Amino acid sequence: MKLYFYRMENIFTDEYFMKKALAEAEMAFEKGEIPIGAVVVVNNQVIARSHNLTELLNDVTAHAEMQSITAAANYLGGKYLKDCTLYVTVEPCQMCAGALYWSQISKIVFGAADPQRGYLNMGTKLHPKTQITSGVLAKECGELMLRFFQARRK
Amino acid sequence: MKLYFYRMENIFTDEYFMKKALAEAEMAFEKGEIPIGAVVVVNNQVIARSHNLTELLNDVTAHAEMQSITAAANYLGGKYLKDCTLYVTVEPCQMCAGALYWSQISKIVFGAADPQRGYLNMGTKLHPKTQITSGVLAKECGELMLRFFQARRK
Repeated sequence: MKLYFYRMENIFTDEYFMKKALAEAEMAFEKGEIPIGAVVVVNNQVIARSHNLTELLNDVTAHAEMQSITAAANYLGGKYLKDCTLYVTVEPCQMCAGALYWSQISKIVFGAADPQRGYLNMGTKLHPKTQITSGVLAKECGELMLRFFQARRK
Repeated sequence: MKLYFYRMENIFTDEYFMKKALAEAEMAFEKGEIPIGAVVVVNNQVIARSHNLTELLNDVTAHAEMQSITAAANYLGGKYLKDCTLYVTVEPCQMCAGALYWSQISKIVFGAADPQRGYLNMGTKLHPKTQITSGVLAKECGELMLRFFQARRK
């Protein structure tokens, strides 16, 4: 007799939530905004979702991450994003990494790297409590950005 | 005969506007917020004023500078703070310096230094267009912070 063990497949992977962030980025794209999207997740539940709105709001602070940090804190009723994971399609900038530093968020997962304006090359410090995963759906996230800037150049 | 030339004294000094930022910081103090205030000035006119509201709003992004950037852009109807000066009582953090970078603000004047969390030691980059003046009413700005943290420790 042979026993088969089936492992429940975990659908709540980083890719699963990055797809939600990508859907947000696509909404930004449709509005003519630089297509970056974000979601915040706690216990496999999305508690905040947002996309870049700097043009619509005429506000350089309206990055996807900033809005998601504010929305998640609002949902939680506290300003620290303990046990939260932020999924964002593109590497955060100095401002957003600085905000994430203050939030003491547990984990950040980003898609495409941003060697020009991303926090890594700019040297922004994250909170020591914060874990980082990068490169999740990087191709899809980066291609959306590329498509946006190519369309704008025409 | 002797001629006397009188020069109109310019009341619109950096100290003049820093006092407005300090008045904002005092409002934060009275609310139990870390006492930091900011104003944005164009052509000697204050177009935005704000103070730290991170506790009241449960939001780490609600620093005085962030609110002033948003308010000033709203007033100007555009997201770039050209010909604007931000007066802020304490050296901006990574997040705020990052936001100021995106705003391309013409000038930043700050009061007290923040060697721990300020953008200078944290290595945050400002926009090349942005001029910096530091140490304006630094004693008053710093003392308000000190008084706040001493009171909180009791």
